[in-house]
Amino acid sequence: MRSKSKLPHLSPDEFRKQGRQVIDLIADYMENVESYPVLSQVAPKDIYNQLPPNPPIHGEPFENVMEDVNRIILPGLTHWQSPNFFAYFPTHASGPSILGDLLSSGFGIQGMLWSTSPACTELETLVLDWMVEIAGLPQRFRSSSTGGGVIQDSASSASLCAIVAARERILQRHSNIASSSLIAYVSGHTHSSVEKGLKIAGIESSQIRRIDTDENFAMLPFSLKKAIQADQQNGSVPFFVCATMGTTSSLAFDPLPEIGEIANAENLWFHVDGAHAGSAAVCPEFRWILSGLETADSYCFNPHKWLLTNFDCDLLYVADRNALVDALTFSPEYLKNKASESGEVYDYNGWQISLGRRFRSLKLWFVIRHYGVEGLRVHIRMHCQLATEFANWIEVDNEFELFQPPILNLVLFHHKAGNKATQSILESLNQSGKLFLTHTVLNDTYVIRFSIGAIWTEKVHVEAAWNQIKLAASGIDHQSP
Amino acid sequence: MRSKSKLPHLSPDEFRKQGRQVIDLIADYMENVESYPVLSQVAPKDIYNQLPPNPPIHGEPFENVMEDVNRIILPGLTHWQSPNFFAYFPTHASGPSILGDLLSSGFGIQGMLWSTSPACTELETLVLDWMVEIAGLPQRFRSSSTGGGVIQDSASSASLCAIVAARERILQRHSNIASSSLIAYVSGHTHSSVEKGLKIAGIESSQIRRIDTDENFAMLPFSLKKAIQADQQNGSVPFFVCATMGTTSSLAFDPLPEIGEIANAENLWFHVDGAHAGSAAVCPEFRWILSGLETADSYCFNPHKWLLTNFDCDLLYVADRNALVDALTFSPEYLKNKASESGEVYDYNGWQISLGRRFRSLKLWFVIRHYGVEGLRVHIRMHCQLATEFANWIEVDNEFELFQPPILNLVLFHHKAGNKATQSILESLNQSGKLFLTHTVLNDTYVIRFSIGAIWTEKVHVEAAWNQIKLAASGIDHQSP
Repeated sequence: MRSKSKLPHLSPDEFRKQGRQVIDLIADYMENVESYPVLSQVAPKDIYNQLPPNPPIHGEPFENVMEDVNRIILPGLTHWQSPNFFAYFPTHASGPSILGDLLSSGFGIQGMLWSTSPACTELETLVLDWMVEIAGLPQRFRSSSTGGGVIQDSASSASLCAIVAARERILQRHSNIASSSLIAYVSGHTHSSVEKGLKIAGIESSQIRRIDTDENFAMLPFSLKKAIQADQQNGSVPFFVCATMGTTSSLAFDPLPEIGEIANAENLWFHVDGAHAGSAAVCPEFRWILSGLETADSYCFNPHKWLLTNFDCDLLYVADRNALVDALTFSPEYLKNKASESGEVYDYNGWQISLGRRFRSLKLWFVIRHYGVEGLRVHIRMHCQLATEFANWIEVDNEFELFQPPILNLVLFHHKAGNKATQSILESLNQSGKLFLTHTVLNDTYVIRFSIGAIWTEKVHVEAAWNQIKLAASGIDHQSP
Repeated sequence: MRSKSKLPHLSPDEFRKQGRQVIDLIADYMENVESYPVLSQVAPKDIYNQLPPNPPIHGEPFENVMEDVNRIILPGLTHWQSPNFFAYFPTHASGPSILGDLLSSGFGIQGMLWSTSPACTELETLVLDWMVEIAGLPQRFRSSSTGGGVIQDSASSASLCAIVAARERILQRHSNIASSSLIAYVSGHTHSSVEKGLKIAGIESSQIRRIDTDENFAMLPFSLKKAIQADQQNGSVPFFVCATMGTTSSLAFDPLPEIGEIANAENLWFHVDGAHAGSAAVCPEFRWILSGLETADSYCFNPHKWLLTNFDCDLLYVADRNALVDALTFSPEYLKNKASESGEVYDYNGWQISLGRRFRSLKLWFVIRHYGVEGLRVHIRMHCQLATEFANWIEVDNEFELFQPPILNLVLFHHKAGNKATQSILESLNQSGKLFLTHTVLNDTYVIRFSIGAIWTEKVHVEAAWNQIKLAASGIDHQSP
């Protein structure tokens, strides 16, 4: 019926045909992703200048678009799904998640209110409850308790929500407090998005304390306590502390039990950022990372990093959903409806920054049902096992050394000849296109982060990477006498 | 090769097979969407309770998931893509945009930095430059000028970015200003997300002025000017004004030239929210809506509403990209790279709230290439034409009357018997499942918003809707003597 329409839309049958071509392109990409230079080798403006400067006046055949994708777009990608991608932290585009996301696009619904698609809200609540069980999280994060979970686009947004909820909670409790007197606590290793979130929320840099860290880059609870006391004595009002479950630079774990105890005693909102490492908790043997999480007011981690769900999918849990909803709910007339007024449903727009929202739980649901809890564990374990093996090779190597023992899927190492050598090696490896690595600087040491987690990475890729690293080091040695 | 892997992932070949099934399901959905009740008829917890309370330990066959989609999820949807959806504003899932979004999921790249996938950044810059031409926007929004555009998830986030950039600009210019003395100006008809954005940014409700509107619900420039002067005299610092290009309740247009002149003279950041109506500017005959936009510091509109691109796709343009980037850029060591340091590239994470970002420009690019500029125009014109016809039927009707003349694709009307009758009719229509409408309240009148814009809506659907509305009215008349 639709195909007879005079509208310029793609008919369902044309959609079927073109859809298969895109599915095939992605399947081919999965097969061949290893053959591309991992880090895109294009120069600034290369892509922009290859495309026409003006939009087409009339529609073009789909084949032209697909040709441009292959000819222009593909060489401009840095291939995060390549098995030779060891940079940053991984982000997975597993088959089931791609298809769940496709379904979300296809249904094209808006999940801002329960009533604008009840299944969007309720599947999300269900899947987030499932994840409490899968990842061994505190029971108070369940929807049947006082808390609950919600999908955010990223940990950046999750932190921002937590910060705003924290700010509103304290300002509501104490009407005489000026927001300029509020103080937030992070460490020098907290992710930059938390400081960005504080800035967005109007917390100025003079209101942020960077607490000292120990030799493992973990926040020192004693220093936190001292800083809080000093601020209180100055008439300031401590209101928020963020602890990290696996920092970005080095997978350092701030001591949650001690920080939580201080935060709870002093009535600070305690946010825990487990963006990457949180996924490891699907394996019981890694649940040590959760110790103390039961003291947190909010917690987030990203299945779009290490849990086979494509970006964007961050899970934010709160212990008291009312604190979040009170801070973020606006109900103009044009959004009013009986279901919302009944109080029996969640309207997730009041749990996030934006009004609009995609049906994101579909992709996470597809992932959990395809892999099952055991499949998720297999996958996490393999990466951690590979990291241990890789670290063992470095440990007995004469040119490289470990910066610290491997933690989960992250190995930090550097060349014994110093920062310049390490940096040169990193750059030549990335230019080779054979693998992609990123760096950090810790205690003035330039360190290569070897993060194992791309979806198709197996032992053979880690071995090949190590061979390339050794080869690059020999090149360096010959060049610098 | 991959299919021989021992990993629990979907092999490329399995992905091909399952992918076709999902494509077919979406194509079938396009064919049949008209047959479902538009507003989902489920009760709270219906969906949640039909699904197992515990996650599967072992992976399940794909067929089980697809069966649950059909049996449990579909009845829980409110069908935004139904041709009988006349609620809120539309949100389009056109075929090309679904496939562009699918490709984005399939590539699974991260666009946070230029270097993490140059094509993601450069295609976005290009498509946003194209849109300046397509929608007749001021030249200073082009990347070749001082400004530029960036894709946000929603107008909520775009406003928040503008607010933070505005706040940082004034605090940087005047180091002696406290942020608690800043004042923002909106109208009572500004979208709630702007007030939410102000709240998130730490601008308290006492710092927000709701400027009076005229008989068409458009902001009164004279009242704005007076309010600014009063605040200045009190030692407060006006810093931000938001004008709306087509309000949500009634498509009112704040007078941009006058507001812009005041904002520019008083050094307020001038943000224009064209979330829905902005798309109309693809048609030259509707470009009157842009008058005065050249005075704006920032502007956003949502191709995910009325321009055939599925959620999420809001375009934010700024006149001075440095103001935005200075406010939102954080550069920790682990993100540093040569391309960023060269200053020759955009790193779009500094143009938005979150660090991570999807390859969203693909879907908009697919849409523009499929439809061409002319195709986009055909589509906008048809909805506006249908709105005019629908309004003509009401104009000569004996039971209903127009609240105001139709504006673009929106018709506001109510029953002559008053608010209770109008509300009853709306509720019975929505319960019928045959169409879905939402309401607003203007000058104490309960008004039905008839918003024509679903992708498959044609004249036959508008006629059927009118018949249903008349039928519902006759039901009401019989019930209330």
